[in-house]
Amino acid sequence: MSKFEFKLLKEPDLENPVLVEGLPGIGYVGKLAADHLVEELNAEKFAELSSHYFPHHVTVTPEGVLETVKIDFYQAKTEDCDLVIITGDVQATSSEGHYKTSEKLLDISEELGVIKIYCLGGYATGKHSKSKPKVVGASNKEKILEGYRDRGIDVEEGTGPILGVSGLLLGLGKNRGMEGSALLGETHGMLVDHRSAQAVLEALSNLLNFEVDMSKLKERAEKTEEILSRLQKEKKIREVAGMGEGDEEVSYIG
Amino acid sequence: MSKFEFKLLKEPDLENPVLVEGLPGIGYVGKLAADHLVEELNAEKFAELSSHYFPHHVTVTPEGVLETVKIDFYQAKTEDCDLVIITGDVQATSSEGHYKTSEKLLDISEELGVIKIYCLGGYATGKHSKSKPKVVGASNKEKILEGYRDRGIDVEEGTGPILGVSGLLLGLGKNRGMEGSALLGETHGMLVDHRSAQAVLEALSNLLNFEVDMSKLKERAEKTEEILSRLQKEKKIREVAGMGEGDEEVSYIG
Amino acid sequence: MSKFEFKLLKEPDLENPVLVEGLPGIGYVGKLAADHLVEELNAEKFAELSSHYFPHHVTVTPEGVLETVKIDFYQAKTEDCDLVIITGDVQATSSEGHYKTSEKLLDISEELGVIKIYCLGGYATGKHSKSKPKVVGASNKEKILEGYRDRGIDVEEGTGPILGVSGLLLGLGKNRGMEGSALLGETHGMLVDHRSAQAVLEALSNLLNFEVDMSKLKERAEKTEEILSRLQKEKKIREVAGMGEGDEEVSYIG
Amino acid sequence: MSKFEFKLLKEPDLENPVLVEGLPGIGYVGKLAADHLVEELNAEKFAELSSHYFPHHVTVTPEGVLETVKIDFYQAKTEDCDLVIITGDVQATSSEGHYKTSEKLLDISEELGVIKIYCLGGYATGKHSKSKPKVVGASNKEKILEGYRDRGIDVEEGTGPILGVSGLLLGLGKNRGMEGSALLGETHGMLVDHRSAQAVLEALSNLLNFEVDMSKLKERAEKTEEILSRLQKEKKIREVAGMGEGDEEVSYIG
Repeated sequence: MSKFEFKLLKEPDLENPVLVEGLPGIGYVGKLAADHLVEELNAEKFAELSSHYFPHHVTVTPEGVLETVKIDFYQAKTEDCDLVIITGDVQATSSEGHYKTSEKLLDISEELGVIKIYCLGGYATGKHSKSKPKVVGASNKEKILEGYRDRGIDVEEGTGPILGVSGLLLGLGKNRGMEGSALLGETHGMLVDHRSAQAVLEALSNLLNFEVDMSKLKERAEKTEEILSRLQKEKKIREVAGMGEGDEEVSYIG
Repeated sequence: MSKFEFKLLKEPDLENPVLVEGLPGIGYVGKLAADHLVEELNAEKFAELSSHYFPHHVTVTPEGVLETVKIDFYQAKTEDCDLVIITGDVQATSSEGHYKTSEKLLDISEELGVIKIYCLGGYATGKHSKSKPKVVGASNKEKILEGYRDRGIDVEEGTGPILGVSGLLLGLGKNRGMEGSALLGETHGMLVDHRSAQAVLEALSNLLNFEVDMSKLKERAEKTEEILSRLQKEKKIREVAGMGEGDEEVSYIG
Repeated sequence: MSKFEFKLLKEPDLENPVLVEGLPGIGYVGKLAADHLVEELNAEKFAELSSHYFPHHVTVTPEGVLETVKIDFYQAKTEDCDLVIITGDVQATSSEGHYKTSEKLLDISEELGVIKIYCLGGYATGKHSKSKPKVVGASNKEKILEGYRDRGIDVEEGTGPILGVSGLLLGLGKNRGMEGSALLGETHGMLVDHRSAQAVLEALSNLLNFEVDMSKLKERAEKTEEILSRLQKEKKIREVAGMGEGDEEVSYIG
Repeated sequence: MSKFEFKLLKEPDLENPVLVEGLPGIGYVGKLAADHLVEELNAEKFAELSSHYFPHHVTVTPEGVLETVKIDFYQAKTEDCDLVIITGDVQATSSEGHYKTSEKLLDISEELGVIKIYCLGGYATGKHSKSKPKVVGASNKEKILEGYRDRGIDVEEGTGPILGVSGLLLGLGKNRGMEGSALLGETHGMLVDHRSAQAVLEALSNLLNFEVDMSKLKERAEKTEEILSRLQKEKKIREVAGMGEGDEEVSYIG
């Protein structure tokens, strides 16, 4: 295995597709939105990417089946355009890993003929707010942002730098002449936020002209929060014990 | 020396062996179990693996002899099958190191003709429990899990992600068509746990149909705990002093 | 993209130029000084450098346009000499990255025919002081320091080791026979310090014999401080949440 | 520059030399001892090693002259044998860097015809003791330890793992058939310890049959402590400010 292993599960059927990316991040906004899109559009998984740059663990399904952590590729058709939806368990674990992963995703996108990129995510405010979460748009080409305000998407400074794959896909994509935007939902930052994910999805579906049923989004967020809280409890035990597998402290025993 | 140095101490005599892995981790369950197996089955060491991905220290034997840290390979014969037992001092120190080490171990396993993998370890609950520790099974092939429940091995979600070599051996092994399971013993997480190791060994010996005398397992755990507590004291001194060798702070002196 | 991407925006017009470097660091002294120099000398950007060694985020302009983080190259002419001014958003994220970045900058400098290097920065005292900040000079060739004291530049031990690109450009430059100095302004260390930047710029302009209007320097520092405090607030939210994109904790969700 | 730059300052005049290593570490015991040996034996510097694996800073001499951080090679002659003394400012910054640096030092040693290695260092007890510090010996060949006890060198478990170059030189040297010992002086761990360095030097000179005047060792330790406390103050300012050069936080400014 080289640094990346890209596995094509079936030949995709795509014409000038638009790429939608949603990986774990602030408020799980991007991942929630992308996962929901996959389900509501009946998107079909056609490929997966493993990497040595990803965290050194495996996931276990409810049936007890182990899987290496992956970024998954789905295809879906909407009235106006074909979609490639990228979602997954993880991001890379180092700065270099983020750059390499983003370049790899752009390589794959170019081969798939992707013509435009949308990266979904959240931006943290640290505040609870009852009003509808704002969505901020940022793009790697100024012209793309025209018309965003008319569709209820803010375009202004205030998002801060964008970390991880979302930002790099657009920044490095620009160097390749690939156009794209980030749609970032306002969120507290410390909670899994289905309301922010919904706002982001509404902005995206408005821009791409398709419909998404949002009724199950809240339930999905609750399930995610449950898993997260269990995992954080486990992580705390490991930390206190200084006994996590792969933890250097473990290594001292002779 | 390349990134890995694999040293064959003697040509192994193995037919379709089963691989059993137990490296340092949660509660030292996996390492305790594998070390105990080596001793009780009179397993013979036939190879060792060093790597630049391992921690940058050497161990010292009670006789004052220095050794680089290693993963050791043992062979043993049971009534039903040959075993390759992997145990050792350490795991890798980075995510990439974990991936590379796991791939290396799989390369070696393929050359040895390994037909099945069992990874031994613990899962942390953060609770003390007087009842017999549960053992949870997870596998990289759903079919393998059939029959586990009849043997007293739980198969259910609740183990969380599996970190380090144990998980990756199975996850990456799956990509190569190698089948295997993880057997994880319930444990507090902050103590060296011979009871959990015993439960895991009982599950394994039940599955592979051999006998292991458990009478010395507690003593082994106590010795391990002693070494660990001494090392943790030393580590604390180093940290407080900011004077550990290899510590960047040390480096400021001109 | 290899580890570095150097993009020449226009062919520079330079004769035996002097290199002036000012990247983010202690008190933002170096970056403030270099940015100010760029503006006051109407310096023209002619190239930019991206790298996998840089942090994994992108910046967003007030217009909502995304950019990968970069080190920028400007050219300016003064009465006595041509200048290449290096400034930018970031430094590398690892020791190795710092070495590689410094070597890359020296490669580019050699191709541009750079004959001398000045690295601008601060040294932290942890104290507030109302008197004019001292400037300390250090060089990779003892002879260069002659005459510094007459120009009000201190030359004495007391700067401690110099970290990052500023130090390495000079240290590694020495191996290539490139001469240069670091001009370090006294600063508290915890505040964006325009007074220290001014002292450093005065020392530089005195040495190179040009004039710089300092009237807008304070305003620039205030703007910098504003951006920084906003970003630090965001960073805190991310940390508390353990939900920053690219944060390993995020990765545990299955 | 590749990962290492080895610079031969003059052709050494050595016959079957013994290598003595003392780099920064616990209690500065090893570095103090090696530096003292260099001075008292009038050892002559003949080579230096720089590396991308070393910390990303440069040192500044009292005269204001910058130098990249280095490991230095000295030669000296004693009645019984020639010595190569390795000392320097730093150790590597990562596990992999430690392995690579140790292998590089062994490569150089082999070319110099080194026949035996002594690594000098300390082991931390966390206790102040008024009695003469013990010296513990550990070797990569059991036979070498014979006779150590008669010379007042303890040989017993209790040193714990040996970190950094000292341990790896011996561990990896063993794989190449190079014999050697570590001589570790008992020390508190949090103080620069000239008494421990003296005990280690006495053990070494006893084994190699030469004399060293110890009268200036205390003074050297005091100077070292002074530099260290100044640097730690600086480091604290940087940390509190979150503004160290090369610190990722710095990088957020757009």
